[in-house]
Amino acid sequence: MDLDALRADTPGCATVLHLNNAGAALMPRPVYEAQTAHLAREYAIGGYEAKDEAHERVEAVYGSIARLLHAQPHEIAIVENATRAFDMGFHAIPFAPGDVILTSVAEYASNYLAYLRMAEQVGVVVRVVPNDAHGQLDTMGLATLLDNPGHRVRLVAVSHIPTQSGLVQPAAAIGALTRPRGVLFFLDATQSAGHLPLDVAALGCDLLCSTGRKYLRGPRGVGFLYARAAIIPTLHPPFIDLHAATWIGSDAYELRPDARRFENWESNIAATLGLGAAIDYALALGLDAIWDRVHALAARLRAGLAAIPGVAVHDRGATLGGIVTFTIGGHDPERIKDALRLRRDRQGTATARPINVSTSTFRGALHDFADRPVQAWVRSSVHYYNSEQELDEFLAIVETLARHPHLLAT
Amino acid sequence: MDLDALRADTPGCATVLHLNNAGAALMPRPVYEAQTAHLAREYAIGGYEAKDEAHERVEAVYGSIARLLHAQPHEIAIVENATRAFDMGFHAIPFAPGDVILTSVAEYASNYLAYLRMAEQVGVVVRVVPNDAHGQLDTMGLATLLDNPGHRVRLVAVSHIPTQSGLVQPAAAIGALTRPRGVLFFLDATQSAGHLPLDVAALGCDLLCSTGRKYLRGPRGVGFLYARAAIIPTLHPPFIDLHAATWIGSDAYELRPDARRFENWESNIAATLGLGAAIDYALALGLDAIWDRVHALAARLRAGLAAIPGVAVHDRGATLGGIVTFTIGGHDPERIKDALRLRRDRQGTATARPINVSTSTFRGALHDFADRPVQAWVRSSVHYYNSEQELDEFLAIVETLARHPHLLAT
Repeated sequence: MDLDALRADTPGCATVLHLNNAGAALMPRPVYEAQTAHLAREYAIGGYEAKDEAHERVEAVYGSIARLLHAQPHEIAIVENATRAFDMGFHAIPFAPGDVILTSVAEYASNYLAYLRMAEQVGVVVRVVPNDAHGQLDTMGLATLLDNPGHRVRLVAVSHIPTQSGLVQPAAAIGALTRPRGVLFFLDATQSAGHLPLDVAALGCDLLCSTGRKYLRGPRGVGFLYARAAIIPTLHPPFIDLHAATWIGSDAYELRPDARRFENWESNIAATLGLGAAIDYALALGLDAIWDRVHALAARLRAGLAAIPGVAVHDRGATLGGIVTFTIGGHDPERIKDALRLRRDRQGTATARPINVSTSTFRGALHDFADRPVQAWVRSSVHYYNSEQELDEFLAIVETLARHPHLLAT
Repeated sequence: MDLDALRADTPGCATVLHLNNAGAALMPRPVYEAQTAHLAREYAIGGYEAKDEAHERVEAVYGSIARLLHAQPHEIAIVENATRAFDMGFHAIPFAPGDVILTSVAEYASNYLAYLRMAEQVGVVVRVVPNDAHGQLDTMGLATLLDNPGHRVRLVAVSHIPTQSGLVQPAAAIGALTRPRGVLFFLDATQSAGHLPLDVAALGCDLLCSTGRKYLRGPRGVGFLYARAAIIPTLHPPFIDLHAATWIGSDAYELRPDARRFENWESNIAATLGLGAAIDYALALGLDAIWDRVHALAARLRAGLAAIPGVAVHDRGATLGGIVTFTIGGHDPERIKDALRLRRDRQGTATARPINVSTSTFRGALHDFADRPVQAWVRSSVHYYNSEQELDEFLAIVETLARHPHLLAT
């Protein structure tokens, strides 16, 4: 990778030291321009007319998503974000009372809330598969639960990379267990798309959701759902409109056959085109190369943080990705985030470009935090366009904060 | 209204003759600039950081929507579009088997499909209230159905201005019947917000949905839901995430108390800010003034079309709004739309700026088309920024097409 060229293609690199790629990554130029160019056409000729004009480019976005996942374009729905993609797929599964949903300790709150709602509504049973010694989902334990004759497991649903830690769950090993047993596997790839290579056949997943704004470096307000062609006919979307279905008689309708049954007619076309540009950008770089660099940068950052007295790193798992989580003593992570954003000298004057990080709390992953020493931490997250110098600069600041905690006072 | 200033504020007026305001209206400058300014900040400093920076402006959008509707900000949810706003409100109603949903003849397909789905899932009964002699919902007939002891009416749901015609339904008269009877009234204001004054108390509605891109002149990919404060606790959103609810224990969660329980955490912030700018723009002009001008322009257009030999106008209703529908002889409306967009002389050379219109077919409103002489028509739709000269130019072209139908050949 030509780091200088990649950074030049990302004007935000000059403005901020961005380690919030797990929140929303900095957009590269083609993603920004795809959006603004389309908005300019909507402004000049009208929203529907601009969409007509962009028809082939919008269709091509389905092809780009399909290439990213090694899937087919008719298996792809473009929706508003990963949460709504998850909802549209999850609530389309015809659960029966007593059906079991298996999920991970590290599961994301929004997904877990959907399981709890389904338990209330339909009487499904939600079970959390324990972690193994590495702190990732225990596939041996999963196999045991899948083969328990007292359990009718309908779905295994797992966040591939949880929002709150460096963990990369062993997705392919999970799919290797579910697929031969005919159990649905829903992989939430919100943090993993654009982060590492994804191949739905190799992963063995039946449903997969993700978002534009995170490791894909795409726009906010757009995401997608993959549904394996063979299972689409078994899934009835929870919401249907005249795009998802055709009103064929006074009390009859027909669902469309492809994955677009999970969409609705209206969408943000500029964001869709930006998503396509983001995926094409990632594919041109290559997901293997992206993963290699993200993995290496994160390992360097994690080691650097762990070496600072007073800093604790919280990531666990056999494979660790681009998210690096830590605390400084007992200091409130929100204060650390604020101190990093507004870098001040002792006189309170801003001294350098802001550092962007995020925080994670137990509210986002109740079970994952149950055995943790803290209830919240700082989430820093690297991407391939971050430089080694940026990590060194960041480590120096964290060290300063750890040494001079009065800088973390309000 | 200062028409010249309004048109100067809408650069699209120089590019197209836009009579597709019921599809997506041309954005005024502040709407475009609110979006592009925010995208530029996301590009420069990151998506989450730009949202933090815009926090107060995003909050102000709730206030703007509330002012538009004469509601309270905590009764407002900002979602992806009117269809999803409708879905989130409709599927939150705790229907029981046998509950009756009453709707209009002119109802929009997407809403009707939701009723049919609820009939399949829960066993509700869907009844269409007949039209009166004007072709609008018969409020006398509605009263009879509401007071029929054999009917347990749970919901009256009506498209205020149907997508496919000039009709303005007698919404306040409907609300005057439902409110004292404790029956929920869901008004779909997708075509009426920004078109005419809306006051949820005067309308007597409990739920109201709308979109940004139509008469409000806002962005694509954003809409909103109003839910009356008193009924919010009775509504459980069909989808919940960590924004709509808090995960408070291994198998427990708590819904947030306000209307944002119908939202999800992620959204397109640029579109949200554009929506706020659009509503502020409409409020500054005044909805009464907007409605007066739209009403007058549409009446002029309708009369002009009706006077052209071979042209049939299809609008019906006691009150007619900005949508004007017509056919030319038996010609395919899609061909008419194409001919208007690509204005050619006899040599096939484009001669003037395109005219934007849309088409409506029976698929969008099966019941409304049941007694119509055609199965599709051209939908032209005026807004206050259209000029009288534009209407004259349009009428002259339609007259030419009606006289020289070979211009409508492929």
